[in-house]
Formats: sequence, C-alpha cells, structure tokens
Amino acid sequence: MVNYPNGKKTFFETKSKIKHTKENVVYKNRGMDFESDINLSLEFFDEQGLAIITKRPTPINVVHVDYTKGARITDAYFEKQSTTDYNGVYRGKYIDFEAKNTLSKTSLPLHNITTHQISHLKKVLKHGGIAFFVISLESLNKVYLLDAQYVIDFFENKTRCSIPLSDIIEKGIEIKQGYMPRLEILKAIDEAYFHEKND
Amino acid sequence: MVNYPNGKKTFFETKSKIKHTKENVVYKNRGMDFESDINLSLEFFDEQGLAIITKRPTPINVVHVDYTKGARITDAYFEKQSTTDYNGVYRGKYIDFEAKNTLSKTSLPLHNITTHQISHLKKVLKHGGIAFFVISLESLNKVYLLDAQYVIDFFENKTRCSIPLSDIIEKGIEIKQGYMPRLEILKAIDEAYFHEKND
Repeated sequence: MVNYPNGKKTFFETKSKIKHTKENVVYKNRGMDFESDINLSLEFFDEQGLAIITKRPTPINVVHVDYTKGARITDAYFEKQSTTDYNGVYRGKYIDFEAKNTLSKTSLPLHNITTHQISHLKKVLKHGGIAFFVISLESLNKVYLLDAQYVIDFFENKTRCSIPLSDIIEKGIEIKQGYMPRLEILKAIDEAYFHEKND
Repeated sequence: MVNYPNGKKTFFETKSKIKHTKENVVYKNRGMDFESDINLSLEFFDEQGLAIITKRPTPINVVHVDYTKGARITDAYFEKQSTTDYNGVYRGKYIDFEAKNTLSKTSLPLHNITTHQISHLKKVLKHGGIAFFVISLESLNKVYLLDAQYVIDFFENKTRCSIPLSDIIEKGIEIKQGYMPRLEILKAIDEAYFHEKND
C-alpha cells in the first residue's frame, strides 16, 4: 500500500484491508459499523452514477464561535434530527430513509424511532416520495428494507412496543451484503418499489 | 403580544411584527434576511401540507466533546457543504436547490457557486430530479428561480465570470413575494416544471 505523506488513503485503499471472500465479509459485518457501511454504499452508488443519496449532517446548535482562532467553535451542542438521516434521488424518485439496528434476537423496539421521524416519513409518502427503514438485525447478520407505511401503522396502533423480527423478515425485502457495495440498497429498492426482482 | 416566560415566540407571533400591506412587505424585504425568508416559506409549505423541503444542517467537524458537561462540544469547526442547502419532495418529484443573493446591480458572480454544488446539481438532473437556484437580486428587490442546467452551462463554458442580471430575469421565473408564504417558491416550480401559470 502506498503511504501518502499526509496519511490520507483513497477510497479503494481503505477498502483493500478487507479480504474479499464472502466468509470474510460476513465475519466483518457481524461487528460492523452499520452506519459506515451505509455511507460507503451510498458513496459507491454516487461514484457509479447510479443514485445520489446523502446523509444529512447532524444538526448542531452553535453557542459560541471564537473568531480570533479563525472561526473555531468553542461552545455548541448536538440537536435531535427532526427528520430522517438519509435522502436523495434514484430513478427519478425522491428517496428518504432512516437506519436502525438492533442486537435483539426477537424484535426492534419502537422507542428507537421518534415521533418526529414518523411524522416526517408520513409527509414524504403523502407527497409521493419513497420512504423506508433500513434495519440491521445484528443477531442474524441480516439487513432488511421495511416500507415506512408498515412502521407508521405499527407505531400508530401501538398494540406492541416493538416490531417482531419475524414481521421485519416477512414484510421486508432483504438487502444483500457484499463487498462493493457493502449493502445492495438500490437492488432492494428496485424490488420493493419498481417490482424488479434482482438475484 | 403575549410574552412567554421563556421568551420564545410562536411562528405567528414572530410574523405579527410585520405590517401586512404590500408596501411594508416590500420595504422589509429590501434588507431582508433572505435565508430566513426561504426557511419560513418552507415551514409554511410544510404546515399547509403542500411540500416537504428542508434545509440541510451546516456540516460541522466536531473535534472535542466534554462529557462531564453533558456532551457539550468544546472544539469544532465549520465544514463546506458539499451539496446544496435545500432538498425535499413536491408533487412526487425530488427537489434540490441552492439559494444565492447578490447586491450587484449588474450580475451574479460565479465565484459564489462552488464546483461541488455544480457537480451535485448535475447528478440530481441526471437522476431525474428538479434542480434550480433561488436568486435574490437585492438591488431590484426581486427573487428568481433559475434552472440548474442554465447555471451549469454558464459555469462550464466560463466565457464570463458572472451571470448578467438580465439573463436571470429573461431565463428565470420570478418568485413572487408576499406575506405568507414570503416567497412563492412552489408557484414558481409549478410554472417552471409543471407548465402551470399561476398569477
């Protein structure tokens, strides 16, 4: 590997550390940084000219900026995201999703999902966008796309305080894991919303 | 006006300070906080169930967080937005735009627009989204929607280092100003992309 003087690595160099066999990928994913895998997948889709979906920056409330130090922020705090984490455009459609992961072997707790997010996703659906959750079931090493409407209904009926894993598996579309992209999110969207089966 | 103990004002109270005659609105807009007017307009569209378009938070690189003070950020700096400031969904279409204002009486300097933004907008168009600039010509007290493709062509040809105001007026769609919403952005979108004339 080339060591650049500034210590920066290119996209491909970062990746080259991971061995490419399927077993290695699955093993790596077991303790994976789920968010990082989503971000790398989106970066890959962008580079390949397939879709432009970006992560919204975490909103930060800036209290004080020290201009004597070149606009350095010296006091600030994190704010809650009032929307979802990801949005963009794919195949002419507005895409909006939130990522959630659970270590549970039985269910995804609803307290992981905020009323703000539910409200936002309802609006997205109302205006004709595509909205869903990308859910990592870490205990099973599986990732699923679950349509927002299903989660909204579940959230609003409140008969249970968590969505059973069996429901996610039954109602969702599995997002296949691989090397590049790490997560085949677009293929899952094709299957869920464009009625195209990709194997 | 009711003074709440915490000093917060509701959406309508904030607005109630401004007198409602057309003259007053125009006068106020002359030195207006253009970004705030866009944000209030988008908030209005959201409340009215017309569209859901949000401002991306400013990306901030957090260097240090003091957890003894309840996750207070004590060192951080602003990063450049690598995309545009606004995106969302309206009438089933993905919407993406950047706001620019100029005090110049003759032209909008291109150095106000970054190559990152141009690159992002090209991708949006490629994937079937609607992309444009909302440009405030402060010297004329007028606001225009200008399709991103026009700006991209101008930027890439680089025959000039600024877009003449006369071009913006000729090629753009005027965004009417009023009380609520402050800026009739959706009507301008209807006219530019849905071929509906709103007067």
